[in-house]
Amino acid sequence: MSIAFAVLGGDRRQLELARQLRRDGHPAALYGFDQVEGETHSSLAEALGASCVVLPMPVTKDGESLFAPFGRGTLLLEDLWPRLNREQVLCGGTVGELLRRQTEARGLFLEDYAAREELQVANAVPTVEGALAAAMERTAATIHGSQCLVIGYGRIGQLLAHRLQGLGASVSVAARQYAHLAWIRAYGWRALRSDRLEGEPLGDFDVIFNTVPAPMLARGELERLKPGCVVIDLASAPGGVDFAAAGDLGIDACWARFLPGRVAPVTAAQAIRDAVYHILEERGEPI
Amino acid sequence: MSIAFAVLGGDRRQLELARQLRRDGHPAALYGFDQVEGETHSSLAEALGASCVVLPMPVTKDGESLFAPFGRGTLLLEDLWPRLNREQVLCGGTVGELLRRQTEARGLFLEDYAAREELQVANAVPTVEGALAAAMERTAATIHGSQCLVIGYGRIGQLLAHRLQGLGASVSVAARQYAHLAWIRAYGWRALRSDRLEGEPLGDFDVIFNTVPAPMLARGELERLKPGCVVIDLASAPGGVDFAAAGDLGIDACWARFLPGRVAPVTAAQAIRDAVYHILEERGEPI
Amino acid sequence: MSIAFAVLGGDRRQLELARQLRRDGHPAALYGFDQVEGETHSSLAEALGASCVVLPMPVTKDGESLFAPFGRGTLLLEDLWPRLNREQVLCGGTVGELLRRQTEARGLFLEDYAAREELQVANAVPTVEGALAAAMERTAATIHGSQCLVIGYGRIGQLLAHRLQGLGASVSVAARQYAHLAWIRAYGWRALRSDRLEGEPLGDFDVIFNTVPAPMLARGELERLKPGCVVIDLASAPGGVDFAAAGDLGIDACWARFLPGRVAPVTAAQAIRDAVYHILEERGEPI
Amino acid sequence: MSIAFAVLGGDRRQLELARQLRRDGHPAALYGFDQVEGETHSSLAEALGASCVVLPMPVTKDGESLFAPFGRGTLLLEDLWPRLNREQVLCGGTVGELLRRQTEARGLFLEDYAAREELQVANAVPTVEGALAAAMERTAATIHGSQCLVIGYGRIGQLLAHRLQGLGASVSVAARQYAHLAWIRAYGWRALRSDRLEGEPLGDFDVIFNTVPAPMLARGELERLKPGCVVIDLASAPGGVDFAAAGDLGIDACWARFLPGRVAPVTAAQAIRDAVYHILEERGEPI
Repeated sequence: MSIAFAVLGGDRRQLELARQLRRDGHPAALYGFDQVEGETHSSLAEALGASCVVLPMPVTKDGESLFAPFGRGTLLLEDLWPRLNREQVLCGGTVGELLRRQTEARGLFLEDYAAREELQVANAVPTVEGALAAAMERTAATIHGSQCLVIGYGRIGQLLAHRLQGLGASVSVAARQYAHLAWIRAYGWRALRSDRLEGEPLGDFDVIFNTVPAPMLARGELERLKPGCVVIDLASAPGGVDFAAAGDLGIDACWARFLPGRVAPVTAAQAIRDAVYHILEERGEPI
Repeated sequence: MSIAFAVLGGDRRQLELARQLRRDGHPAALYGFDQVEGETHSSLAEALGASCVVLPMPVTKDGESLFAPFGRGTLLLEDLWPRLNREQVLCGGTVGELLRRQTEARGLFLEDYAAREELQVANAVPTVEGALAAAMERTAATIHGSQCLVIGYGRIGQLLAHRLQGLGASVSVAARQYAHLAWIRAYGWRALRSDRLEGEPLGDFDVIFNTVPAPMLARGELERLKPGCVVIDLASAPGGVDFAAAGDLGIDACWARFLPGRVAPVTAAQAIRDAVYHILEERGEPI
Repeated sequence: MSIAFAVLGGDRRQLELARQLRRDGHPAALYGFDQVEGETHSSLAEALGASCVVLPMPVTKDGESLFAPFGRGTLLLEDLWPRLNREQVLCGGTVGELLRRQTEARGLFLEDYAAREELQVANAVPTVEGALAAAMERTAATIHGSQCLVIGYGRIGQLLAHRLQGLGASVSVAARQYAHLAWIRAYGWRALRSDRLEGEPLGDFDVIFNTVPAPMLARGELERLKPGCVVIDLASAPGGVDFAAAGDLGIDACWARFLPGRVAPVTAAQAIRDAVYHILEERGEPI
Repeated sequence: MSIAFAVLGGDRRQLELARQLRRDGHPAALYGFDQVEGETHSSLAEALGASCVVLPMPVTKDGESLFAPFGRGTLLLEDLWPRLNREQVLCGGTVGELLRRQTEARGLFLEDYAAREELQVANAVPTVEGALAAAMERTAATIHGSQCLVIGYGRIGQLLAHRLQGLGASVSVAARQYAHLAWIRAYGWRALRSDRLEGEPLGDFDVIFNTVPAPMLARGELERLKPGCVVIDLASAPGGVDFAAAGDLGIDACWARFLPGRVAPVTAAQAIRDAVYHILEERGEPI
């Protein structure tokens, strides 16, 4: 079934999203990308006539205007909402409390595709690949044959552990829950206790990836690392590494954020597209 | 810290459990294995003096006596409970409502190690290996290069998919939740919809493993299988395959149950041991 | 291009080979399988009219008659050769010096498909899977998590190491050549020196697979194994394990031979079929 | 056994080599790295007193002077040879005919560590990792889920195929020999014929890695690639890609050379160290 989409604002991912929707056979109006040449652009009026309006990820950075770094003008959200209606399926990425209140007040229902678990799983793929690329770039030895520690066994942690194994690293994973520790062993990795990192042999590792947004590698832990150990923090804010201490200690530590959009916008766009399709399917409008 | 254990009844797993506890440095009284030679056995009185009493898995099969296939006599549960006290840590595998009421009525607190997620994860390892062995035995081609479908993305489903990939099979996994479908794709497998198996190409597969305890492969699905397709049901009761229909259709289908204890009692015993240690740790008596 | 084949004698693999040739669109006469019902059989005269005559693997066991365990009569090779001609492509498995002389004396050219490297590689697949099944059956723990040693880094050794890794074993491989040791490390396994096994920690392993047809595990090595270690010899004659010593020492050791035909006749038949096709291709008669 | 080494000239790999030799307990004189601070340097006279003199890789770039990009002066080979003697073990990387003649004329025996197969295998590891990093950087989608073709099944080809699989790519490998094609299938990849690339579906691939130093991707093949396909040539000179044609066609193609030293000097140094140890072992001076 063909549905009329509009993609409003956003970064390269949303541009790619519009292309993918078109490739799937749907008309997809594109608005907010005036600086990009060689694309078919629509006026705001045209775009707002779509059955499914896709807002960017995030919807806004300043809380007032649509996030549209490739657009020429500014579209205020308070000007946008009145032009939408409740018959339309309206989706955006990372919808906070404020936007939810604004849209609900107008009878609009704004679905948050970024909050959907399948998008977060799909985004773990490019995040992990970006993390591997960062590690390859920063180390003077190969990932193959190196001792790698992954802190946290969430989505990113588990996928990262699999990929590191696929590259021939010696993999350890630190987790807290007994069930997670059992999974780590079931995949053949060394299991460490993330709630007792002080007792774990942190000095064994060549590369440490943190995925937990809580203070995991504070000064005390960092002081115990092997010289030359590379630290890559993949956690969302507030992160898990004391970067000031790392700087003092001369440790190569980086906070690798927003990897999906940066390293693999095509893949990140597919994740958004699939999540939007699922929203439509749940609304009774299967693609 | 050394703790006095007693292992009462059970199959080869519990025998192996007693050995492992001893190897870890704990005294472990063994009761209910009179038919096994070459072991140090204890009287019931000795055994019941232990700080941690481990009952078998299941605790009872008939609802009245302790499950003790290697023992010579019968120990009625109603004779057992009065000889235990609330200072002891008491654990058993698969504790039903009845046992829970019986023990609580006497002020005993019976922990169910089989209900713990880490044990279920750990048991997925031998279950999956038993499933692979069954598939290897039943197929006239290798698992390598064959088209394998795993129905369900629970513990067993996901581990089985990884192992099949490790053996060189072409792996498809059927699941229902969007997030599970995203995981399946994140691991590089083909994702099928388990809630729409009627629309999926079931005739493509050489081996199908079911892990969902609900009617997944009814007569209609079975009729669409490729000649020679092998079906292995790993689901707990009531299973997911219509075996009568499979018989009519001449399909090689088997219900592979209780694999951990049968194919790898040593591994299964380790899972119990770890779960018991965790119970003690949670009670403030870390090993 | 369709070619007329004849499959003469052999075990289940050759029966399956005839089916596969037919499935590929070639007429394939079948002779020497009278005891098998439900197949289309041919007379010897019909069969010998084929353009490509496929003899079994091995061609003969007694040196005089065609190996045909599913046939009712006996076909002497000295009666067979005169009825073949030099226009036919003639192939057999494991052609020794004697057969080569007999056929060359009559101007026939008998190709040995079993000597072709691609067949040996393809046969490594079912051999390895049979070895894994044997190991799963004999061990009381899972392959996952066990310490496995593969002696020899030939075709079977390297494939076996990959599959053991895929199942979650901790993999060590013993080899002699520096280049093989480098490969073993490149795949992330522990490298042992097979020419100095006396200095290697043989007592570490739960399962040992030998692939080298030379005395690798003599009494001295066997005496150093861990209690319960399972030994599986996959080497061709004369094997590499002192089974008498293993018996004395109470070690579970087995010589797993002829696995492809036994565990996966369909896969083994594909390997023969592909090799026969390659022979035809090299003769300028591509399939 | 401790042996006195001298490392003369070379790039970061040789600097790292000296450190590794010292870490293994050997005295290692370092000459030709005057621009590097914080290292213990030796005079040429000191260095030339070593039992084992390690020349760089390559020994010379201009055919006259030692390759020493981190040194301040120039050391002519014709000045070097007279100061060495036949009691010393003398090794260099990539020793051509000219150097061999020069050294043999003086009774010196110059071993080429770069010609040793174990070094080439070990170097395949960083080469492959560099290739993956290059692919990750150049593609807008993830390697995971992409269609990747590896042309050639030599050392680099086979290791690259394994790693791509480990990252979740869909792997195809093109080779010529039947035995290589059998290996490719034994590892579960799609096998293409590299001698008939014109008949293969080149338009299917998102990333193509060439490892064959012969014209594999000429204009005709390049014209058939999918828009956006990334081409990475890993072949030694003369390479295998028509870069001029790729430029005309707007294809992103790069020749990734000398990866071990660039992406993982520590790993590359280990490979040299091991090869040098093997040379000593073969000379009867085991380390």
